[in-house]
Amino acid sequence: MILIYTGNGKGKTSAAMGGVFRALGHGWRVLVVQFMKGEWPVVFGEQESAKHHPRLEFFQMGRGFVKIMGDKKPVSVHREAAKRALALARKKIASGLYGLVVLDEVFVALNYQKGKGLLTQGELAGALKKIPPKTNVILTGRNAPTRFIKMADLVTEMKEIKHPFQKGKPAVQGIDY
Amino acid sequence: MILIYTGNGKGKTSAAMGGVFRALGHGWRVLVVQFMKGEWPVVFGEQESAKHHPRLEFFQMGRGFVKIMGDKKPVSVHREAAKRALALARKKIASGLYGLVVLDEVFVALNYQKGKGLLTQGELAGALKKIPPKTNVILTGRNAPTRFIKMADLVTEMKEIKHPFQKGKPAVQGIDY
Repeated sequence: MILIYTGNGKGKTSAAMGGVFRALGHGWRVLVVQFMKGEWPVVFGEQESAKHHPRLEFFQMGRGFVKIMGDKKPVSVHREAAKRALALARKKIASGLYGLVVLDEVFVALNYQKGKGLLTQGELAGALKKIPPKTNVILTGRNAPTRFIKMADLVTEMKEIKHPFQKGKPAVQGIDY
Repeated sequence: MILIYTGNGKGKTSAAMGGVFRALGHGWRVLVVQFMKGEWPVVFGEQESAKHHPRLEFFQMGRGFVKIMGDKKPVSVHREAAKRALALARKKIASGLYGLVVLDEVFVALNYQKGKGLLTQGELAGALKKIPPKTNVILTGRNAPTRFIKMADLVTEMKEIKHPFQKGKPAVQGIDY
């Protein structure tokens, strides 16, 4: 089963992490691969929480968001990181060992600069082609392309109705990360 | 801070549970009170997962959804359960000991039969009146009333784009509960 959490509102990664929390409770083995996220001078609560779960593997494989927040790395560095993350995910999905695999922010990696994404749609689709029957995959990120909406069993759009960032408030530890 | 996850799509409780997972990672004390949910012949993954966290208190205080799925209990039984759940939440919120308090499906309790909810808006608003500065509250459930949207700092509408239930598929362990 493929689940997609997309849209511009808060709750996409949170919903995926809630899925992780639930799946762990059922005794499943779980893998989380985060695209884009990485190299930030903050502690991610979900990452800290993950350390305590022997059945949860958590990989933050991004190099930070591209060309914002002071990023000066060449795009090729981000592209390489995204390809490495997807290669790992692909292998782990195919293994059939995981009840749940989360590809967090994968659509952000896909959508980077129209037509020049850090990943191509074909590469992502390839990784999702043969999902073993007991493995569920959650994909998150804004602007999920139609191709993946069609492939998915479940799609929820998180729509922003109200957000503190609208009023210029900064991200809050424990809530936003 | 008050956060609301509402709408007809999957991901509301999941996003709240992801918030729990994140908050626990930051060392916060967390309380989850589930309205409506309870007395179902299934194991909830989030409840199982909760057992392993010394800083997480998890209360399933509902008596099941009202008048569906074979429920024959008088509404007064459900109303009493909802009031007991809210009283607990109110007390715990006021204590200031919790970094995060989740009132899961509280809007379902509120919205039961127009004007005859298991809880009144005034009762819920009362419990949220004095939230200590370090406590964050997440409210979930369909059809969040305007009064609470106005009170909240963050509101996301989970909009159903595609759902397996549309095709008559049943709820799936590890994904839906």
